[in-house]
Amino acid sequence: MRAAATSTAFSLLSPTRLRTSTPTTTGLPFRRRLRLAAMATDASSFRPEAARSPHAVEPPAPPLSKFKVALCQLSVTKDKARNIARARRAIESAARDGAKLVLLPEIWNGPYSNDSFPEYAEDIEAGGDAAPSYSMMSDVARSLQITLVGGSISERSGNRLYNTCCVFGSDGKLKGKHRKVHLFDIDIPGKITFQESKTLTAGQDLTIVDTDVGRIGIGICYDIRFQELAMLYAARGAHLLCYPGAFNMTTGPLHWELLQRARATDNQLFVATCAPARDTTSSYVAWGHSTLVGPFGEVIATTEHDEATVIGEVDYSLIEHRRQFIPLRHQRRGDLYQLVDVQGSGSK
Amino acid sequence: MRAAATSTAFSLLSPTRLRTSTPTTTGLPFRRRLRLAAMATDASSFRPEAARSPHAVEPPAPPLSKFKVALCQLSVTKDKARNIARARRAIESAARDGAKLVLLPEIWNGPYSNDSFPEYAEDIEAGGDAAPSYSMMSDVARSLQITLVGGSISERSGNRLYNTCCVFGSDGKLKGKHRKVHLFDIDIPGKITFQESKTLTAGQDLTIVDTDVGRIGIGICYDIRFQELAMLYAARGAHLLCYPGAFNMTTGPLHWELLQRARATDNQLFVATCAPARDTTSSYVAWGHSTLVGPFGEVIATTEHDEATVIGEVDYSLIEHRRQFIPLRHQRRGDLYQLVDVQGSGSK
Repeated sequence: MRAAATSTAFSLLSPTRLRTSTPTTTGLPFRRRLRLAAMATDASSFRPEAARSPHAVEPPAPPLSKFKVALCQLSVTKDKARNIARARRAIESAARDGAKLVLLPEIWNGPYSNDSFPEYAEDIEAGGDAAPSYSMMSDVARSLQITLVGGSISERSGNRLYNTCCVFGSDGKLKGKHRKVHLFDIDIPGKITFQESKTLTAGQDLTIVDTDVGRIGIGICYDIRFQELAMLYAARGAHLLCYPGAFNMTTGPLHWELLQRARATDNQLFVATCAPARDTTSSYVAWGHSTLVGPFGEVIATTEHDEATVIGEVDYSLIEHRRQFIPLRHQRRGDLYQLVDVQGSGSK
Repeated sequence: MRAAATSTAFSLLSPTRLRTSTPTTTGLPFRRRLRLAAMATDASSFRPEAARSPHAVEPPAPPLSKFKVALCQLSVTKDKARNIARARRAIESAARDGAKLVLLPEIWNGPYSNDSFPEYAEDIEAGGDAAPSYSMMSDVARSLQITLVGGSISERSGNRLYNTCCVFGSDGKLKGKHRKVHLFDIDIPGKITFQESKTLTAGQDLTIVDTDVGRIGIGICYDIRFQELAMLYAARGAHLLCYPGAFNMTTGPLHWELLQRARATDNQLFVATCAPARDTTSSYVAWGHSTLVGPFGEVIATTEHDEATVIGEVDYSLIEHRRQFIPLRHQRRGDLYQLVDVQGSGSK
């Protein structure tokens, strides 16, 4: 029932205020004339639908619109087999607690460093023994019948490496694979310097997938800084954006929660992030703070920096409520700006 | 000296990482091959410059790059003459404290209500006695030799009313006039319902002006929710975005600071807001909290809800520092998304 009701509401895309032709206003009270004047330049002349190209679509009715999500903020060591086993146990525990969607952190099967990326990389296309992290994720998603946003691992494909997030359906099948499109190359002297592009190649595609728990847009860590990505996912009908990410001790306190709340508020959808736990002995020290944010920018569930599983409840009916309250979709000025989805078909 | 140095730095628009043709990689160490593979799809193929159309320009060297800004959070009553006199005194006081840029609140010469907008409206084009608020602002900017972002007043033009922000140069001349382009029409049942479009007409243009204190993009209140506006101002070379605004007791605590910090962080520039003081006896109760935010999303100066003048220091050299640290401008994916400035010439 909930899904059907949501679907109907989501279909109300066209502007609710209609254009009115301006009649002769002489003789009308001033307030009435004002109102007619205002309406004459209203709604359709602003072309809200043209603010996105292709036009934005509303989120589809999801199979499940209210469910628990688990963010597994894992401790990560140099021992890959241990990392895989530990991730599996955390996922199993989350599923026992009722989670229908589980997220893992960015680069959870080995250290986050340019030295480690080649060593821990897996050949996802080959699968099996060439990709033990990948195989575990597929197996556990199937056996637990959950949707799994598998954080990220380094992926080897030919002679290239990618920072890749695999999304598994509750049948264990790969639903989508996001290769980080904005590589983390920053240099704040004395604070944090990192150049992913020394070893990694950037992905070429946006990744949005339909799952049992809604339409999900994927970004990895630094991708969250590029608001255009979130805007395009929203225009393609996402309910939820998932960002596995490992912000650091400089940018974490400055921007991690801010960016999540901004993406959720501006796009009026859910945002979930999952970070590794903090290890102060590693070369890259993660901020932690895996968080679930609702479509008003409200923090639904979060944690500090230790290993923990955050469990929060998602209710997609809130998306439509918030969009009715603050109807940004009908108020955008397509006559002033237009965001073009270069690859987009508009449907997904 | 500062301005000259800033200007040089700002001119470095083109991507710093160059495209490298891929040589035969056989025989090279694996890491070296990886690096070449990564570079082959790098930088120019991502077309960062194409992420904005027209291409983004860097902020020009401002006459003054380090200065004090004052945000006059004024109490507003039904007595228009009193409001004008009080605003003048606050501006004079701020100038005595060294402010070179002064902001006033949204709708500061009378109550914020659809009933009041026609009553307090001024004919800015006629000027003089037909526009006492406007005339005061022009006069005080000239006599104090300050730049004044005059909050907003309701403007009558023909048979239309606008919510209009006038920007005055230090010679008292009108440098630009922003008519709110996104009217505040929201409905959160039991919390806040307002329909500006009942009386007001939306503006048709973005407004960005060159002043003694930099290139300033103007938005009014609800305009801040539309991230495209801030993105376009940044692409047109703004140093600072000014949003006179009167968020309310519902959306204020939820979103006011969040949106300011997000616009500043995402666009790596300064954001200043100015609200009226809270009057719990009025029909529309403002949140207050006028704030100055720096290009890392840091709150430089702010206040609570009482009448107050917030004074903060702006240093535009921080813009270039932040952009060097986190070089978003060179990392955008113009091959994946493009924001089009429909009216824009690209120069300003």
